[in-house]
Amino acid sequence: MIAVNTQYQPLAQIEAKRMKKAVLIFSGGMDSTTLLYDLVSQQFELYLLSFNYGQRHKIELESAKRTAEKFVLPHKIIDLTSVNQVMEGSSLTRSHIDVPYGHYAEESMKVTIVPNRNMIMLSIATAYAVSLEAEAVYFAAHAGDHAIYPDCRQEFVDKLSEVTKIANYHPVEIRAPYLQMDKGDIAKRGVELGVDYSMTYTCYEGKELACGKCGACQERKEAFLKAEALDPIKYQD
Amino acid sequence: MIAVNTQYQPLAQIEAKRMKKAVLIFSGGMDSTTLLYDLVSQQFELYLLSFNYGQRHKIELESAKRTAEKFVLPHKIIDLTSVNQVMEGSSLTRSHIDVPYGHYAEESMKVTIVPNRNMIMLSIATAYAVSLEAEAVYFAAHAGDHAIYPDCRQEFVDKLSEVTKIANYHPVEIRAPYLQMDKGDIAKRGVELGVDYSMTYTCYEGKELACGKCGACQERKEAFLKAEALDPIKYQD
Repeated sequence: MIAVNTQYQPLAQIEAKRMKKAVLIFSGGMDSTTLLYDLVSQQFELYLLSFNYGQRHKIELESAKRTAEKFVLPHKIIDLTSVNQVMEGSSLTRSHIDVPYGHYAEESMKVTIVPNRNMIMLSIATAYAVSLEAEAVYFAAHAGDHAIYPDCRQEFVDKLSEVTKIANYHPVEIRAPYLQMDKGDIAKRGVELGVDYSMTYTCYEGKELACGKCGACQERKEAFLKAEALDPIKYQD
Repeated sequence: MIAVNTQYQPLAQIEAKRMKKAVLIFSGGMDSTTLLYDLVSQQFELYLLSFNYGQRHKIELESAKRTAEKFVLPHKIIDLTSVNQVMEGSSLTRSHIDVPYGHYAEESMKVTIVPNRNMIMLSIATAYAVSLEAEAVYFAAHAGDHAIYPDCRQEFVDKLSEVTKIANYHPVEIRAPYLQMDKGDIAKRGVELGVDYSMTYTCYEGKELACGKCGACQERKEAFLKAEALDPIKYQD
């Protein structure tokens, strides 16, 4: 009897693995890196997808590549610089968007103002999930985002998921498990999971050494303070 | 009294024009070209958006450019060739997709098999609409499509529209007014509107002269037959 059970176990494992294939939108920042560790610990077979919208992403994408290599996970980078075109001559609408930091580099500005960005990224990630027959697309939107951005709210995630379930022959679910957590909660979770935060990039300035002053750096520092953990990266200050 | 009315009319016209700004997903084929004429006749202020996924589109995009120039309408072409990556090594799922014609060129094959393509295009078009503060995104899906493709059905359009209404500070509606019409109905409508079909490109082969034999050419010929109209383009046969 035991022999029979043993014989069937590998098949059951394969089946379980097939059930848990997912695509993760992966920027290489601390939120999506924590989610990567989280999903790996939940035994998801992960496929990583990054997006290049412009200048600032170059160093962030390098972090993403290094983490993907560390985990030996498939990682694709989609070039969406062409999409920046839809923003030309639209200064009228820029007042809608919160650009909180004066010292953004000009190239970085572009990155922050592509409207509908989550929907674009999630649509492409859904295409990837369909082609892999994966059950879900994950992204690491969190509570600090959804006060400002409508496409980081539960209503958006739920309604988009209704679409991705019926848009193709293979249904895909959109999941944002950190939506009720803030950046401090994420850092806490990351410390539990043993995330190597030395490999994550956060700073808006896009230089090798984080500035420590911009809003993104400040947010990161506060997150580590709240998690009562030490941030392993070096800052200019 | 008449003088006062005259004075107020231009303002009212400006207001009406502001109310009817829209983005059209424009391939340069007969369906989206008919919709272009249709929306212009409804006095929409139109912004055209085309997508380049690969080889086959080159000649179709030339048609699109010529029609845009004829109408002096803003026209952007988004390069999405990078998105083809998400299809690598996914031969498993290709059986889901109807590729009805044996003589597709190899490069054209790629074009037909990007899953979730409508959602990707509509997401980017929505970004454009938000940046323009346009009320809607139009696309020319028709009854001949939705038997095969889930993302050409009313349910998909309705659910996606629920998302685009809440995904950004500016709400956008997704509209597919030809969804209950077949290609023959569209040709009939086009003849009424005076569409110049000599400027539209349909053939799958991607050569300057349409082959007349592939599925797309056959569909086009049937549409003109049903509309009792003459197709102005020349065929190889």
